[in-house]
Amino acid sequence: MPGIDKLPIEETFEDSPQTRSLLGVFEEDAAAISKYSQQLFQAMHRIYDAQNELSAATHLTSKLLKEYEKQRFPLCCDDEVMSSTLQQFAKVIDELSSCHAVLSTQLADAMMFPITQFKERDLKEILTLKEVFQIASDDHDMAVNRYSRLSKRRDNEKVKGEVMEDVYTSRKKQHQTMMHYFTALNTLQYKKKMSLLEPLLGYMQAQVHQPMTSSTCPTLTPAWFLSTATSHARPATSTLASKK
Amino acid sequence: MPGIDKLPIEETFEDSPQTRSLLGVFEEDAAAISKYSQQLFQAMHRIYDAQNELSAATHLTSKLLKEYEKQRFPLCCDDEVMSSTLQQFAKVIDELSSCHAVLSTQLADAMMFPITQFKERDLKEILTLKEVFQIASDDHDMAVNRYSRLSKRRDNEKVKGEVMEDVYTSRKKQHQTMMHYFTALNTLQYKKKMSLLEPLLGYMQAQVHQPMTSSTCPTLTPAWFLSTATSHARPATSTLASKK
Repeated sequence: MPGIDKLPIEETFEDSPQTRSLLGVFEEDAAAISKYSQQLFQAMHRIYDAQNELSAATHLTSKLLKEYEKQRFPLCCDDEVMSSTLQQFAKVIDELSSCHAVLSTQLADAMMFPITQFKERDLKEILTLKEVFQIASDDHDMAVNRYSRLSKRRDNEKVKGEVMEDVYTSRKKQHQTMMHYFTALNTLQYKKKMSLLEPLLGYMQAQVHQPMTSSTCPTLTPAWFLSTATSHARPATSTLASKK
Repeated sequence: MPGIDKLPIEETFEDSPQTRSLLGVFEEDAAAISKYSQQLFQAMHRIYDAQNELSAATHLTSKLLKEYEKQRFPLCCDDEVMSSTLQQFAKVIDELSSCHAVLSTQLADAMMFPITQFKERDLKEILTLKEVFQIASDDHDMAVNRYSRLSKRRDNEKVKGEVMEDVYTSRKKQHQTMMHYFTALNTLQYKKKMSLLEPLLGYMQAQVHQPMTSSTCPTLTPAWFLSTATSHARPATSTLASKK
């Protein structure tokens, strides 16, 4: 991919002020990405929660309609018609409810999964590595400090050797964590666009393939309304016809 | 409408135990209807709230995408492409958001309005009239009691006249409120089916005429995805072609 900024990993050994200032820019960028994607995550989570709630509420409604028959209404004249009508309605609303449930699942898989992964894995990794790098940096600074004080006091060879060993280990550690940290920040630059676009595409594709259209929810069409109206109107018409 | 049970208003004057026991049955039925429609109201309110939340969350998402340009990312290589892509996405999600908003409005008008009216007007009226009738009944019982004690003690004509006047007024009042109460209970019998069916029809019609289908949301179709993919792929192809 051309045009993507990279932190030069080969510079981690020298650890110059220039490298540090470049690191600062990348850290700022990572923080901005993190903030923006956090906002997007929250908005998407609201969509997802609302879709789940819609699915649950629709299911509850159809359940209530099915329970109409079991209600004890002391006055229940021609409740047969009412019951069968509500059963038909319940069937339609049931279908809508499963359409909503399918949409919820699609949103979970195609929208929530990628953005949660990005947030919980990639962005969290950078925060962790930042801390680890900070600790390694502090350790190294401490070791170097001790070494510089040591040379003035001219201690014995054994202590000198220990302190030098300490500087070596801590610098090695700092170099390693810095390389890891740089790699993670570079990876973020490669991933950032896809990580924002993927959940959005997932959301939109779930909407496009939304099963709530007439092709997959065959019952709920204007034609269904007509047929229901006709089937209920027919007895009345035949009564009229027989009267003639 | 044939087959609908009615409380005989002409019996309110006599106020026999039979009438009272029939009233009890109607009151029980009204309580059952009230309970059932309260449950339905709650389920529908959940649907409505979820739909509103979905609309708001979708709007927020599209707003966030539009704000991408204004974000300060220190590293912003070829952000032009990203910005324009997100603008396109924002446009689609904006459309979806207004579709959701239209659906919310439809649910408010065709589902929430009738069921709220039924709950707040018809069912509440019955509760109020029940109380008023209870008070008038108690007043009447008190007046009759006083009258019965009066005849034993043989008071003077003036007091007797007052008490009889009291019995007359309270019986008239009781008769009137009982007629009102009976009328309200009879009206409920006529209204109950329509009041349950109307909001359900409103809900289903809002779903059928849901503007989220491709005819009214022209942007979000599989074809749109293809065209977006093509328009982004084309520059690459032309670059290849020019290289040949």
